Amino acid sequence: MNTEKQSENTNTFSEQTKRLEQQINFIREMDKEKFIGRQTYLSDGKRKENDAEHAWHLALMTFLLSEYANEPIDVLKTMVMVLFHDVVEIDAGDTYAYDEDGKKTQAQREQKAAKRLYGLLPEDQGAKLKAIWEEFEAKNTPESRFAHTMDNLQPVILNATTNGKAWKEHGVYLSQFMGRQEDTPKGSEILWQYEWEKLVEPFLKNGTIKDDSLRE
Amino acid sequence: MNTEKQSENTNTFSEQTKRLEQQINFIREMDKEKFIGRQTYLSDGKRKENDAEHAWHLALMTFLLSEYANEPIDVLKTMVMVLFHDVVEIDAGDTYAYDEDGKKTQAQREQKAAKRLYGLLPEDQGAKLKAIWEEFEAKNTPESRFAHTMDNLQPVILNATTNGKAWKEHGVYLSQFMGRQEDTPKGSEILWQYEWEKLVEPFLKNGTIKDDSLRE
Ligand SMILES: [Ca+2]
Repeated sequence: MNTEKQSENTNTFSEQTKRLEQQINFIREMDKEKFIGRQTYLSDGKRKENDAEHAWHLALMTFLLSEYANEPIDVLKTMVMVLFHDVVEIDAGDTYAYDEDGKKTQAQREQKAAKRLYGLLPEDQGAKLKAIWEEFEAKNTPESRFAHTMDNLQPVILNATTNGKAWKEHGVYLSQFMGRQEDTPKGSEILWQYEWEKLVEPFLKNGTIKDDSLRE
Repeated sequence: MNTEKQSENTNTFSEQTKRLEQQINFIREMDKEKFIGRQTYLSDGKRKENDAEHAWHLALMTFLLSEYANEPIDVLKTMVMVLFHDVVEIDAGDTYAYDEDGKKTQAQREQKAAKRLYGLLPEDQGAKLKAIWEEFEAKNTPESRFAHTMDNLQPVILNATTNGKAWKEHGVYLSQFMGRQEDTPKGSEILWQYEWEKLVEPFLKNGTIKDDSLRE
């Protein structure tokens, strides 16, 4: 019996076990995405969706709508990007769009969160996923631009389906809406055009999304 | 002005609009996956997960764990497969593993559901997704075998995390558990070995999963 070889095998086996243990721990940690609430109502208007449901929806939309991207995209990379795009919220929480104090510390809190969360993974995978998240945040590649188009379009589909329930609750003005949709055409002009004509204009015409000229 | 050319453009535009309309309708219909409950408790043990959350978890697991597949897999195809694998339940409902009457009509109900749901999409995309779902059901490719490994492993991770809460509630015997895990090693021997040693054996030893020899 070759003791040296056996010891090598044992090391390899325990290294593989350690790697897998790290991956399973991360997968378990990801479950917390299901506890993080968003502002969008599901299509039945009864409850609001959570980050995991939202990310699932974006991933299937990416697969179905990639043909409308302004530039060719790597579909697998974009799907991975949207599946994970919100996970920093597990530690950093969701920062509401009009929370000015919260927004000052947001980038720092999210960097810390990304470091801890992706640090649970084996180094190669953690570094890869952290880089994909940073690419999403930087919005400077075809994939990250299209991912933001998905992220912006999906809640509008749901809001239009519930007859504007979330828009009514928040008393949303057109200028606020447009501010949040700034990046949508950068990933897909066609999808932005569709969104505007079919999902937004009707709610502007009937007063659900409020005209800024009516502000006091 | 070339009237003929303009008319061609108009047709092309309205065809593209029709295609996109079909895709958005399908995306809206998919929202119903978030209403379909499963038997597995989330990691906090407070509520059970739904089909959309489950599919999101499988997709990220596929990305992270593909290195353990018995045979090389197409990761994108497998991710698409798991994202959509349960959507027939929107029409056909979830059939409980021990509902013998329900199981007789299950295949027929699910085929009808797949026909209606994928029929909402443009023909090329609908046919592609229906074929991927049929491949999942047939379990005869590396991708479909790995997808079933993900589908079987994910609830075991959550059940182990909640200290076996769902197993206790259902009074699960080892033979029942093994019956449901029959396909797990076919996609990945390594993941099955890990699952058995780390996530199952401890719950067999402490009696949470019941030994069949104790059956009356
Ligand atoms: Ca988002």
